[in-house]
Amino acid sequence: MEDKLQQLKQHLMEVEDLERTSNVLAWDQATYMPPGGNAARARQMALMDRLAHEKLTSAPVGKLLDELQPYAESLPYDADDASLIRLARRHFERAIKVPAAFIARQAEHHAMLYDLWARARPANDFAAVQPHLQTSLDLSRQYADYFPGYAHIADPLIDRNDEGMRTETVRAIFADLRAALMPLVQAIQAKGPVETRFLRQHYPEAVQWQFGRAVIEYYGYDFARGRQDKTHHPFMIKFSGDDVRITTRFDEHDLGDGLFSTLHEAGHALYEQNMPPHFEGLPLNTGTSAGIHESQSRLWENIVGRSRGFWDFFYPNLQAYFPDQLNGVPMEAFYAAINEVKPSLIRVDADEVTYNLHVMLRFDLELQLLEGTLEIKDLPEAWNARYESDLGVTPPDDRDGVLQDVHWYTETVGGNFQGYTLGNLFSAQFYEAALATYPEIPGEIAVGKFGLLRYWLTNNIYRHGSKFTADELVQRVTGGPLRVAPLVNYLREKYSALYDLDLN
Amino acid sequence: MEDKLQQLKQHLMEVEDLERTSNVLAWDQATYMPPGGNAARARQMALMDRLAHEKLTSAPVGKLLDELQPYAESLPYDADDASLIRLARRHFERAIKVPAAFIARQAEHHAMLYDLWARARPANDFAAVQPHLQTSLDLSRQYADYFPGYAHIADPLIDRNDEGMRTETVRAIFADLRAALMPLVQAIQAKGPVETRFLRQHYPEAVQWQFGRAVIEYYGYDFARGRQDKTHHPFMIKFSGDDVRITTRFDEHDLGDGLFSTLHEAGHALYEQNMPPHFEGLPLNTGTSAGIHESQSRLWENIVGRSRGFWDFFYPNLQAYFPDQLNGVPMEAFYAAINEVKPSLIRVDADEVTYNLHVMLRFDLELQLLEGTLEIKDLPEAWNARYESDLGVTPPDDRDGVLQDVHWYTETVGGNFQGYTLGNLFSAQFYEAALATYPEIPGEIAVGKFGLLRYWLTNNIYRHGSKFTADELVQRVTGGPLRVAPLVNYLREKYSALYDLDLN
Repeated sequence: MEDKLQQLKQHLMEVEDLERTSNVLAWDQATYMPPGGNAARARQMALMDRLAHEKLTSAPVGKLLDELQPYAESLPYDADDASLIRLARRHFERAIKVPAAFIARQAEHHAMLYDLWARARPANDFAAVQPHLQTSLDLSRQYADYFPGYAHIADPLIDRNDEGMRTETVRAIFADLRAALMPLVQAIQAKGPVETRFLRQHYPEAVQWQFGRAVIEYYGYDFARGRQDKTHHPFMIKFSGDDVRITTRFDEHDLGDGLFSTLHEAGHALYEQNMPPHFEGLPLNTGTSAGIHESQSRLWENIVGRSRGFWDFFYPNLQAYFPDQLNGVPMEAFYAAINEVKPSLIRVDADEVTYNLHVMLRFDLELQLLEGTLEIKDLPEAWNARYESDLGVTPPDDRDGVLQDVHWYTETVGGNFQGYTLGNLFSAQFYEAALATYPEIPGEIAVGKFGLLRYWLTNNIYRHGSKFTADELVQRVTGGPLRVAPLVNYLREKYSALYDLDLN
Repeated sequence: MEDKLQQLKQHLMEVEDLERTSNVLAWDQATYMPPGGNAARARQMALMDRLAHEKLTSAPVGKLLDELQPYAESLPYDADDASLIRLARRHFERAIKVPAAFIARQAEHHAMLYDLWARARPANDFAAVQPHLQTSLDLSRQYADYFPGYAHIADPLIDRNDEGMRTETVRAIFADLRAALMPLVQAIQAKGPVETRFLRQHYPEAVQWQFGRAVIEYYGYDFARGRQDKTHHPFMIKFSGDDVRITTRFDEHDLGDGLFSTLHEAGHALYEQNMPPHFEGLPLNTGTSAGIHESQSRLWENIVGRSRGFWDFFYPNLQAYFPDQLNGVPMEAFYAAINEVKPSLIRVDADEVTYNLHVMLRFDLELQLLEGTLEIKDLPEAWNARYESDLGVTPPDDRDGVLQDVHWYTETVGGNFQGYTLGNLFSAQFYEAALATYPEIPGEIAVGKFGLLRYWLTNNIYRHGSKFTADELVQRVTGGPLRVAPLVNYLREKYSALYDLDLN
């Protein structure tokens, strides 16, 4: 049995290494690749994806999984080997439903479209991507059709990223959250505007970079096992447990843009850098779902990085980096400005309260596209209409409208946005659990110490890698299923204080 | 037949894409990869190499090659399809002799050793790499043994990089060249030293970078289809015909180091950027041998880049980049300094005349290691002894001795150095042929025009990719086999003028 397990691990490691290699190709594409490189790159990424898929779905893998099933069942559910076999079986079962040629075609299409989008967005040229986005939608529908019996066509697409989640569940959770958020947004908007102009002064990129780097070193991000580069649309990417990279963008006239995206990606990276070394090369060695991953980035970006305690410690430091810009700005004003709630156009720049409205409208539009009640050609208009109705703002152009998010232009249409709001929900629920165990965490953060929080996260989340599904993990860590209340309570409490609200 | 050819091309393109993907992994390893990344990177590169090897040696490829042989023979020798089938057959025949597991083991070993070397060289720590270099030697011998019937154990290793070359041929050529070089070196050494101190002033890296970039843009290097990054040991690397990158290193107290290595790698890159677009993805789409490739780098680095005419045009420009350092230095003094002949320690910094002595001693040491007449443990001493006897200089430490060249620490022991001197020989012979057709080339260079030379090279060399072997190419381009005379004549003429020698 030990021998068969080794054989299975060999196969899985090859799948993993093909996927990690594809990640190197993707990282280079998004950071340093010259314009000419794209055609071959798309072909090469598609090849990696096809080979990984072929390897995962090969006959020996299926046979080994069958043979190892009794062994897996003889072990505790959370044993490494049992979890590996269980996870591999789920990956195998999902992969065999989809032909390798389809995977390759989809990967090549997405790589090509990413390149088009990277040029179309600055040129504000939706027409350049429109026919290809239609192809993406067609391919996404085709993907879903490889999983007959779904309750909603989006279910197989959601399941790819947030395993076990269903369209109906997400809709119900989003409806509850929306019902709680709307009064909060309205109450805040009834208050006067917050002074934020000092955040829009000139902040030289190199200094922003230094400060952000210093903060994430405090967080525990290990630069000996990672690095930070510039890109259009920031992301975290893993080549191995000891090479977990982040990318960032900077706006010299918006201090928050680069800083909070750095904290965000570092949150993802902390998860990936702190899994058990013996998971290396195995599919266990990654975060368990888009939602859980996002809980980690949002925790470090927002719950920690926009907290009062965090800035008690870091604000004098930030002032020292930017004395001309900030020496005249009191801490209270700064804290209020970085937490300004203001309906706006860009999801990744949105405040914690309105952020989820951005996600929900994307999720709804995806469902309409998949259901066939919205056509790609009408998407820019539908996008703008939803921004007006939900957020009260109108995109001046597609650049800051339908072209703003990379996802539709490099992934499936469907399944790629729900994780952002699920992540916010998970992050609040996890933090609540962490505080129940260690009430001293906020006090530690206020003196620049992050070890206790990282310890709790490592022990409860990081070290499990993909052993458990999101549902299993949240049950295990918090003693119950995902709830809307922790995020709502967190937001109500924080923003009542900030805006002097009386919500009761 | 057309269908079978398409199938063959599909297979070959997959091999090619796996190799190019491995190149992306190698480029990242040598430029941006954090220290932690190495273990997984070695594994991933080994996987790419193994998969490429498995694909190339798969049964369908052998069968298709057999079936396509009559078609190939029905075409002119230099037809694209005939050349592709001929080249693929040679690659196939060579690859099937070597087990895929060996390829993977060797690739993983080399990736690991590269990382060790990158740390051992600055630490002057030969002991750290010694046992692993022994493994490299063992693996190199094992590789040769997959080709029984060789005349010399180095032959299969030389053949990998300079197809068709034999140890005995190289030895004979090197002996002739050595016999011609020694009197030239002695005649020059009898003259007084050249003033070069102004080249050792402080030259800020950023400005060096700008100037080098400007020059290679004149050369025709296309930054939209390439880029330049920093590394320890400069190289050119190709991901596709439209993504050909170079790497450079800079020494702020040695103007020549970064500049000439930039021109050198750009020479390699011009070759790879100017092959026919319809070769893309096929094994034809690369330079034909190490020696021919080196002829291109050395042509642009030396014959062009260290010529009088080149500096007639660029020196005022260089002075404008570095007015404080060079405004008081006359053109004649600068030209003499960058062409100073002085036996020294470092191959890549050596002048044109003594450079080949560096290569020859490495070649001889490799042969001794392979023959078993020299042991790895005695290599540092043997290295130093040869530097004393051949060049009259003694390395102060292994950093500038046996650890200086990357090749033994990331490739086979054997077959990796002869190409450097073959390249110098080819470069002079090609340039002689180019001047015979276009005597106006030097005049064009002297006014900063490189189009005519590039046109001749594209037409005679670049456009053929790997269609012809080095032997075939030199015959086709120059009407005869490789000769020692063109390089010797070029050096005697140039350095007689520079040093006021009377060689007759």
